[in-house]
Amino acid sequence: MPAQVLANNNQGREGIPLNSPNKNTFNDIRMKGFRKRTEVALLQEIIRERLHPLEGEELELSQLAGRVLCDDVVSEISVPPFDKSAMDGYALRSEETFGAGDYNPLKFEVIGEVTPGEEFQGTVGRGQTVRIMTGAPLPRGADAVLMAEHTTESEGRMLAVEAVTPGKHVIRVGEDIQAQSVVLKAGRKLRPQDLGVLASIGRGRLCVRRRPRVALLITGNELLKPGEKPRGAMIVDSNSVVLQALINRDGGIVSEVQHLQDDREIIKNALLECSADILLTTGGTSVGVEDYAPALIEENGELLVHGIAMRPSAPTGMGLVQGRPVFLLPGNPVACLAAYDFFVALAVRRLAGLPEAWPYHSRIVELADRITSVIGRLDYARVKIKDSRAHLLATSGASSLTTTTNSDGFIVVDQDSEGFPAGEKVKVWLYD
Amino acid sequence: MPAQVLANNNQGREGIPLNSPNKNTFNDIRMKGFRKRTEVALLQEIIRERLHPLEGEELELSQLAGRVLCDDVVSEISVPPFDKSAMDGYALRSEETFGAGDYNPLKFEVIGEVTPGEEFQGTVGRGQTVRIMTGAPLPRGADAVLMAEHTTESEGRMLAVEAVTPGKHVIRVGEDIQAQSVVLKAGRKLRPQDLGVLASIGRGRLCVRRRPRVALLITGNELLKPGEKPRGAMIVDSNSVVLQALINRDGGIVSEVQHLQDDREIIKNALLECSADILLTTGGTSVGVEDYAPALIEENGELLVHGIAMRPSAPTGMGLVQGRPVFLLPGNPVACLAAYDFFVALAVRRLAGLPEAWPYHSRIVELADRITSVIGRLDYARVKIKDSRAHLLATSGASSLTTTTNSDGFIVVDQDSEGFPAGEKVKVWLYD
Repeated sequence: MPAQVLANNNQGREGIPLNSPNKNTFNDIRMKGFRKRTEVALLQEIIRERLHPLEGEELELSQLAGRVLCDDVVSEISVPPFDKSAMDGYALRSEETFGAGDYNPLKFEVIGEVTPGEEFQGTVGRGQTVRIMTGAPLPRGADAVLMAEHTTESEGRMLAVEAVTPGKHVIRVGEDIQAQSVVLKAGRKLRPQDLGVLASIGRGRLCVRRRPRVALLITGNELLKPGEKPRGAMIVDSNSVVLQALINRDGGIVSEVQHLQDDREIIKNALLECSADILLTTGGTSVGVEDYAPALIEENGELLVHGIAMRPSAPTGMGLVQGRPVFLLPGNPVACLAAYDFFVALAVRRLAGLPEAWPYHSRIVELADRITSVIGRLDYARVKIKDSRAHLLATSGASSLTTTTNSDGFIVVDQDSEGFPAGEKVKVWLYD
Repeated sequence: MPAQVLANNNQGREGIPLNSPNKNTFNDIRMKGFRKRTEVALLQEIIRERLHPLEGEELELSQLAGRVLCDDVVSEISVPPFDKSAMDGYALRSEETFGAGDYNPLKFEVIGEVTPGEEFQGTVGRGQTVRIMTGAPLPRGADAVLMAEHTTESEGRMLAVEAVTPGKHVIRVGEDIQAQSVVLKAGRKLRPQDLGVLASIGRGRLCVRRRPRVALLITGNELLKPGEKPRGAMIVDSNSVVLQALINRDGGIVSEVQHLQDDREIIKNALLECSADILLTTGGTSVGVEDYAPALIEENGELLVHGIAMRPSAPTGMGLVQGRPVFLLPGNPVACLAAYDFFVALAVRRLAGLPEAWPYHSRIVELADRITSVIGRLDYARVKIKDSRAHLLATSGASSLTTTTNSDGFIVVDQDSEGFPAGEKVKVWLYD
């Protein structure tokens, strides 16, 4: 059994130092163990190479927040489309206010009023003024607005107690946006205020990247559906609810969730009948006798990676079936969560056209405990921050989801690192 | 006109130093100017005092991400509910593996197999082993699992080439969650992984804080609805689309959007007929002749604050009508956005039970330009980060929404500060 011995030697208890990554590592490894583990960064590179933003869809303004623009947006109009007042006050000829002050109020004849939405049908002449509200078009003849606070008005006369310079409190046509200019660029993730700019230039519908549809195949004879009560040897699937929330976070939509028995034909059919943009399987991805998914992908497509140099999440894989990316996620919930964040989040965000970065805030915190790892493996260490120091909760324990709910965040120990001594300042990614 | 003169003196061009804030600053100030401006921190304090989390509603697991728990969650069961295998391998008596190694393979009789979801109907005796998959219950008699990688099996015999200690690769009953323990505390904002924990303990529905319903009254004769094209003296309302996106971000729901003419009766009826948890008005909040909202609130409820020591957003107000919080937001889009973030975001998040903090990431960046402000007024300065330095785009310009789309974020110049010199390291709140 030389092949077996080789596998055993490569597969030390602490994982494999892997210096020559291999894109296609498939073999039927059921009950034998992973022959090689792919570096985290390599699978991420494969995802970047293979996955690109989806086509666009046209949506209404109110649906655009957080979505990604397909094309540059060029304004057809200037904003504001006319000179307008920035204040409530009086439109007048600025040169006529020179010298005005508390002890030298200057008198103007109020010839009318203009409020937003209307145009003043006349011209402001010498010694005249028009009462004007914020946002109203500046009347002809006037070149500035004197704030209401610096005036008093009675019986058709306004007294100015302050001088204004030409253009004062006037917003010029095109001051915010020039006609024919690009206001937002293709690839932009739309901020709330971007929608305001789009509204102001008269755009009501816009083309944004379609949200990727993600199908979940949850495999395992032992699994009950979320909402059911655990009984006997049966436990409740928790991965599907976690994945749904994460997929939404990253701009994806869960298009279907199937709970499947560990049955080769059933899983095969589900793989082949999928119409989503990405398919995720959980469970059945490792080296047990009922771990059919890896072999099924190899037989019906291409298994690009199987086995990752990462703790937890080693039994993660990725392949293509009918050109569709399929991720094999571990059934253990912490491993599933970490594999999602390291690989699937990247895939979903790329398809959605979103920036790669995790939405987690991060903070540099001093370590209270030592974290040990091994060269060649990335570790996902969960920590709790107490008295401004990060206390290690768990590096292993792939099945204890409470290590991700009782902790404040996680530290990534890179594959080139053997860990950190206590006292070291490290980056903590915060779950909240 | 003594009152008028007082107003003028208090209302310098650069805003008012305000040392003795006054909760109720109402007067009919139309065409007169704000008499006093309330400190930003004081209005925030009023919001904290007056607004509290809404009642709960019961929802399904799949709807709970990001929502806030009403009550502690106590688990009725232990997780896992039985001792189970953490690996694919062989369940056996650990003491029988002592001494096993590559050069000393030890032989075991394979008496069966157990996969997840079933229980092995027998007992592992001396020299015996049961093939076991990750997640399957540990058979009686066995106390450890030897990983598949450290074995070979043929013809009903398994050869072990590694020793295991008692409990190895076994997840003990209750190791993740003890029955009767609190797994998540009241007030918790639910993380994706929290939903997994809830599923695993058999919870399907849960009580979370209701999302606040927010009504928008957009006033202004000059306003077209979003999606329309600007024409003549008419411009498009941009505030409603920005506010909707921000309200969603903060856990609220926009329950209605009304575009209203500047008509006293129409606005009054809308104020009184509202059934939302919070009401926001935009426009008509300042000191112009058509700014009815402040007076209407005073007449039909209580105007707590009107006029804020902040640039932009000075014409912001807050009051209560029929016990319902009403925010008067400026019509100028930057002022509206900033007033939302400083006050309404806090109100919406408090009602939703969410933490107060902005969802913006922040970064300490060196200033490329000087920022000047005045004591007594908070400034909202928009900056663009280039070559790792923050370049000032605008502190004024309340109507130029592009100052919030062309910038990367904003700096808050506190009311106790006169600004920052170039070269100073300051906190930038990032829009993305």
